[in-house]
Amino acid sequence: MMNTKVYVGIDLGGTKILAVILDENGVTLNKAETSTNAHEGAEPVIQRMIELIKTCLEPEHQLASIGVATAGTLNSKEGIVATASNLGWDQVPLGKRLGQEFGVPVNLENDANAAAYGEWAVGAGRGTQNCVYITASTGIGSGIISGGKLIRGRDSSAGELGHITIDMNGPRCLCGNIGCLELYASGTSIGRRAQELASQFPEKAAVLLEKAGGSAITSRHVAEAAALGDEVSAQAIEEAGKALGNGLVSIIHIMNPEVIVLGGGAASIGAPLLEPMKQVIAERGIYSLTNGVRIVSPTLGKEAGAIGAALLVAE
Amino acid sequence: MMNTKVYVGIDLGGTKILAVILDENGVTLNKAETSTNAHEGAEPVIQRMIELIKTCLEPEHQLASIGVATAGTLNSKEGIVATASNLGWDQVPLGKRLGQEFGVPVNLENDANAAAYGEWAVGAGRGTQNCVYITASTGIGSGIISGGKLIRGRDSSAGELGHITIDMNGPRCLCGNIGCLELYASGTSIGRRAQELASQFPEKAAVLLEKAGGSAITSRHVAEAAALGDEVSAQAIEEAGKALGNGLVSIIHIMNPEVIVLGGGAASIGAPLLEPMKQVIAERGIYSLTNGVRIVSPTLGKEAGAIGAALLVAE
Repeated sequence: MMNTKVYVGIDLGGTKILAVILDENGVTLNKAETSTNAHEGAEPVIQRMIELIKTCLEPEHQLASIGVATAGTLNSKEGIVATASNLGWDQVPLGKRLGQEFGVPVNLENDANAAAYGEWAVGAGRGTQNCVYITASTGIGSGIISGGKLIRGRDSSAGELGHITIDMNGPRCLCGNIGCLELYASGTSIGRRAQELASQFPEKAAVLLEKAGGSAITSRHVAEAAALGDEVSAQAIEEAGKALGNGLVSIIHIMNPEVIVLGGGAASIGAPLLEPMKQVIAERGIYSLTNGVRIVSPTLGKEAGAIGAALLVAE
Repeated sequence: MMNTKVYVGIDLGGTKILAVILDENGVTLNKAETSTNAHEGAEPVIQRMIELIKTCLEPEHQLASIGVATAGTLNSKEGIVATASNLGWDQVPLGKRLGQEFGVPVNLENDANAAAYGEWAVGAGRGTQNCVYITASTGIGSGIISGGKLIRGRDSSAGELGHITIDMNGPRCLCGNIGCLELYASGTSIGRRAQELASQFPEKAAVLLEKAGGSAITSRHVAEAAALGDEVSAQAIEEAGKALGNGLVSIIHIMNPEVIVLGGGAASIGAPLLEPMKQVIAERGIYSLTNGVRIVSPTLGKEAGAIGAALLVAE
């Protein structure tokens, strides 16, 4: 029987653990997921992760490495999850534990950076050298590949594109900064802005208010109501699109990318968000930098982080 | 006689051409400069550049490569200066000409990127892997080194940090974008803002108006007047410092650098500009990213671009 060299990638989330097995060409051979059940504590979660990996491995697989994508603050050198509030973890030596179990190199990576790398290497950014990945949903996650390398920075914390200031006279973000892109262009911000506008102009928000049915307005309500002609919803989405365009102009000026991979729930609203965004980029960006930049949707779905984590350690 | 392998770096500016000769350790062995006299046309400028290089070379020097730093749009692959408005050049095959003359590889690089690389490699950013270089004078020039590599992007045009939006409701910049950092934190902007404030509150700008003596107010007038207690001047500098702090927070969030090399005429104003800047960074930045970031002055002076250009091709 021929042995196949394989690379494991794990996306360790607050709700689910996702595992993928890739071959040397980055092709997914197998995948599986399980619940995180973080409330049980770190050790049971690690055990479930180990079982999940074993489930995915076939007898002919020769495991080469394990990459783990996760939120929180990482000490990648030591393989330690320093703090992860979504897991309730504090100083968990995850790399060491997995390394002991499987006897292979283990690498931990910030989840947004891992997803960016996955989309760049085998997804929507494939074939480029300079790719910016942004996912606008509850918050804004992102990662940057420049010259074919993931931009990590000092502590592997580079790429916080959701927390660049687009209005220095704006409101304060939860991160402490002022007027962050995330305050204007995330799904959360679209819901919040529509709520504000609906309070001011309830006569222009009849469809939206009916959709929400008295509960908190979400970006999904706003998207659905806008599609039915709700004025307040259309405005909230247009404003978010323009803000996103502003943020992208700054990022294009800094990184000079070939492609922007733009995903997440907010991006899935489509043209009502993307058209004003593109208009702002065309109007405001330096032409030699914005000209020819492709803005595309991600193609790897929820597996992007696990795939990127596997490829980063394989690299 | 022992041969010494040497690397030539040229800074081709609108006013002067500066040449440096470096050894393999990046130590400057020789340097010289001459006037550009761009009005004479491209060929005489290239001839002067060739003569300047020959002046600097000693008999024992074994020339390995030539790097040229210049403003304008470059086609580095082909060695062509596509457009350089400060030289009046259009599609000049500078790389080919120098290559023919000296028979060595020639590399063209954006001047701000070259200066950034020089300061990183052998100047104020030495010993780090992640360095942001910003020079705030007439405009804002900048370049980024991440993971020990110069960030070039698709067209070697990355690092336009002066043209990131810090106020999406602000005025339009000459670049076409809105509310650019350069509009608030360059030397030009300090002069312009002081002029505005002096028109509104002449009673608080007596020292400044005397310094300027009826001519246009420059950042130098503002700095001198502020040192003598001029209120309007102090305010203009404080505002610029805060704006610069805002821009730096965004850049720190994106790049997660270890060090920021901050130079130029505006930065040389010192504490009245730098203290409000640092306060904004401390107040607004994400602590894990801003904590420990050193902000230092450049050490290579006007030779940074030539040195960086030499080292980039040597690399």
